[in-house]
Amino acid sequence: MSPGNLPPFSDSKAPLRVFDLLKRSHDGLVPTIVQDADTHQILMFAWMNDEALRATLTTGQAHFFSRSRNALWHKGATSGHTQTVVEVRLDCDADVLLVRVRQLGGACHMGYRSCFFRTVAADGRVEIADLPVFQPETVYRPTKNFPP
Amino acid sequence: MSPGNLPPFSDSKAPLRVFDLLKRSHDGLVPTIVQDADTHQILMFAWMNDEALRATLTTGQAHFFSRSRNALWHKGATSGHTQTVVEVRLDCDADVLLVRVRQLGGACHMGYRSCFFRTVAADGRVEIADLPVFQPETVYRPTKNFPP
Repeated sequence: MSPGNLPPFSDSKAPLRVFDLLKRSHDGLVPTIVQDADTHQILMFAWMNDEALRATLTTGQAHFFSRSRNALWHKGATSGHTQTVVEVRLDCDADVLLVRVRQLGGACHMGYRSCFFRTVAADGRVEIADLPVFQPETVYRPTKNFPP
Repeated sequence: MSPGNLPPFSDSKAPLRVFDLLKRSHDGLVPTIVQDADTHQILMFAWMNDEALRATLTTGQAHFFSRSRNALWHKGATSGHTQTVVEVRLDCDADVLLVRVRQLGGACHMGYRSCFFRTVAADGRVEIADLPVFQPETVYRPTKNFPP
């Protein structure tokens, strides 16, 4: 397949590598969307740096960069709600990643399958639209702040 | 439904409003995921400011903030590939939006239905995985830079 007159993404003989293409923000991060590979539900949004992307690609488990903890974040390391990677995709501008995963438990630290459990009505009203799938206090230590 | 022991998102009598809850970045923007409401495919990722969100909610057509043009961006205004809003969602931290839409044509300025038309293999190799759905040169003026 050919993208026509578009920039030659794959005309070169050398394969394109994500770490060469990736456009990072000034702090080295890339917005990352996480989608359930089976139901296609959007589970969460997070940030990756090179280390997180490399860990994700080599281990097959989703890793992110936690901005609040300023550290590599193996999703599910505390809760057991890990994400097994099915596919990683890169957007047209090479500045956003999409990770399609098999999610154990729930992705959201507030107990929901997806972080996007609230709807916004046309008048701006925000309402909870989903049911929680787990009790956060049973999977996170009560004395510890919830992970981001 | 009740979120159990979670912070009381909806215990107050006054309805929660998105513009009160929304946590914007230092430049007033909020990461926004756009998903096809029918196929659940992730179509694109963009940024909204308050003006874009207000326009999206009041017109029912997706609007964003174009960082490259530093202006409100009515998606599809040039290409005709508009996005009719089916649902807007807000994430747990109130700092990411999800817009579920009915997409005309393709969301990607490079001619693909989705901006995420490239896969990243475990070894970092990037390959085009989708077929284009339109020719960009037929929907964008050739003398004009592609919209973001």
